[in-house]
Amino acid sequence: MEFKEKVALLRSRHAALLERENEAIEGNGIYKRYRYPVLTADHAPLEWRYDFNPDTNPYCMERFGIHAVFNSGAIKLGDRYTLMARVEAADRKSFFAVAESPNGVDHFRFRPRPVTMPEYGEPATNIYDMRLVRHEDGWIYGLFCVERKDLSLPGDLSAAVAACGIARTHDLENWERLPDLVSGTQQRNVVLHPEFVNGKYALYTRPQDGFIETGTKAGICWALTDDITRAEVQSETILNEQHYHTIMEAKNGEGPAPIKTPQGWLHLAHGVRSCASGLRYVLYLYMTDLEDPSRVTARPAGFFMAPEGGEYVGDVMNVLFSNGWIADPDGKLFLYYASCDSRMHVATSTVDRLVDYCLNTEPDGFRTGKTVERLNALIDKNLKLQ
Amino acid sequence: MEFKEKVALLRSRHAALLERENEAIEGNGIYKRYRYPVLTADHAPLEWRYDFNPDTNPYCMERFGIHAVFNSGAIKLGDRYTLMARVEAADRKSFFAVAESPNGVDHFRFRPRPVTMPEYGEPATNIYDMRLVRHEDGWIYGLFCVERKDLSLPGDLSAAVAACGIARTHDLENWERLPDLVSGTQQRNVVLHPEFVNGKYALYTRPQDGFIETGTKAGICWALTDDITRAEVQSETILNEQHYHTIMEAKNGEGPAPIKTPQGWLHLAHGVRSCASGLRYVLYLYMTDLEDPSRVTARPAGFFMAPEGGEYVGDVMNVLFSNGWIADPDGKLFLYYASCDSRMHVATSTVDRLVDYCLNTEPDGFRTGKTVERLNALIDKNLKLQ
Repeated sequence: MEFKEKVALLRSRHAALLERENEAIEGNGIYKRYRYPVLTADHAPLEWRYDFNPDTNPYCMERFGIHAVFNSGAIKLGDRYTLMARVEAADRKSFFAVAESPNGVDHFRFRPRPVTMPEYGEPATNIYDMRLVRHEDGWIYGLFCVERKDLSLPGDLSAAVAACGIARTHDLENWERLPDLVSGTQQRNVVLHPEFVNGKYALYTRPQDGFIETGTKAGICWALTDDITRAEVQSETILNEQHYHTIMEAKNGEGPAPIKTPQGWLHLAHGVRSCASGLRYVLYLYMTDLEDPSRVTARPAGFFMAPEGGEYVGDVMNVLFSNGWIADPDGKLFLYYASCDSRMHVATSTVDRLVDYCLNTEPDGFRTGKTVERLNALIDKNLKLQ
Repeated sequence: MEFKEKVALLRSRHAALLERENEAIEGNGIYKRYRYPVLTADHAPLEWRYDFNPDTNPYCMERFGIHAVFNSGAIKLGDRYTLMARVEAADRKSFFAVAESPNGVDHFRFRPRPVTMPEYGEPATNIYDMRLVRHEDGWIYGLFCVERKDLSLPGDLSAAVAACGIARTHDLENWERLPDLVSGTQQRNVVLHPEFVNGKYALYTRPQDGFIETGTKAGICWALTDDITRAEVQSETILNEQHYHTIMEAKNGEGPAPIKTPQGWLHLAHGVRSCASGLRYVLYLYMTDLEDPSRVTARPAGFFMAPEGGEYVGDVMNVLFSNGWIADPDGKLFLYYASCDSRMHVATSTVDRLVDYCLNTEPDGFRTGKTVERLNALIDKNLKLQ
């Protein structure tokens, strides 16, 4: 095939992928999954991957491998459903890139260039999993994980130090990098609350397991900081703790920033447990008090979404993860989730349905006998209808 | 869609699933797999999952997530092929529920309610993997794993203590709970032998790895106990030990109770090894002596069944597990196995075929050279035929 023909074929396939319409799948009444992922490595612009000069790339081969597009922050910018994707190159380094869609479920298209995130301090080995928040101070913040080699363990090539990077923008393109969050522990999955609380910035944190003030509880914590340009975790209180033999036995972490509803703040998080084939990541919901967001008001038992079908399989098996969702003014909700550190999906619902789920799903009883009681109560209720 | 329409749609889909006919797949001549799983979470009655009152569930959403149906005990009750399924709710707690089929390969249907298993001692966090045995004392016994938090390790949320729960019944609905098996070690995968041996109840045990009297061997053990209402492991002898670089290098455990044949007791077990993606669970067969069931008489090398196709994928990847099979009086055999802690399948064969497999498959030579010798012997045999 001639060079030109090869290029034409690449372009037509890419265009077909970007134009492909998505299709909702009826589910459990709570949300709908969609037939196709919304954003994948194949969505990356061809100019990011090929050298289109036949003199320097006569075989028309890929010159820059883009491998996975996952864990994306999400925000509505004007009328565009916008994802801040974690894009992973073949070299295993990830970076951020913006993709936009007119309807939130298909036709996502990357902007022409990836984000060049300014450095802070020692240049990062890797950056990933941005949470986008439109804060009431007027900025859009991006909080993300910054990973650097742990130099205290030179012999361990896997040893890393994770910190929370903070940057702000108005357009997702030009970023002002602020100092990393100062914390006594490593931090992943840090999320900025969209409003001031007692005049301070409020953070959902996840200090490394086992190291928090109570000494025995681990989980999602809550911390206030005076100045986001010099953000520091001075004290953390536990907000949503792990429990033995639940879907969050091994770890948990806040997803995207919570959504404000008349009934309280609606939260999406991930829970992790160990199993014989490694860690299993699922998604769950909970709610906190409107006036005092450090107080949990609803904690439905178990997972809200777990991997299904092809979602089970990818670079890191058995993982659903979400750090982005968008609630439209009419209450329609777009939940963007990644499967297996490989690709992005969407599920749609409404804010009302998710609140209804939170308020009408019983909390965990922490043992099988309670689960059977709960099941029998539902069966009894249905039998009375007959 | 109106509430009534939604309910009608749910009901018609559920009915179609329960009515779906299964289809045997020709395999290796030893057994046949089937096209569809025989029992899944989707088989759970809709009344277990939905609140059908439009006043309290206006969106017609699932209220109780049922997630997986796996590791099922099996028994023929009258003319019904009956499974005692491990059902897992979205909260990760499992419980037992009975499902019955007229032919053993499709049309499985759950009874209207789950089993409410009486507690013994400290209420269990989780119960699972029941082995059903029709014992010659006249009772049907259910032995199962009872898991509780390991309170000696409060800082480790995953630390659990596993014991063998014992209960008996005549109908699988009303259960008399007996005291848990007393043992010096944790116990999973305990199975009751169907006959008295020297006037005692006989158990297949699996003391936690590494701790048995020999100090060096681990595996399926054999223990006698005088009184099943106060069952106690006083001494265990090794019956079927693990070996380096076999399919049971990391762990093994008895499956369902063995089947009596003229050539000896036919056993189904699982073997576990470690690999880069975690543990891999496969099924294997062995035989013991009719007069002295503590003596192994046949030990064919390698696995009998390993995951294939969609069986590889689920909540815990790369797992086949079986704790239930049924042998009909005419020798037809129904082997019920779960894949990946997610769903139940059936394979059919005959008792004669499985005995033939055990007696005519060479034992493990424990090194590659022996395997090649074994292969050449078979090739030589075939060449002589020409």
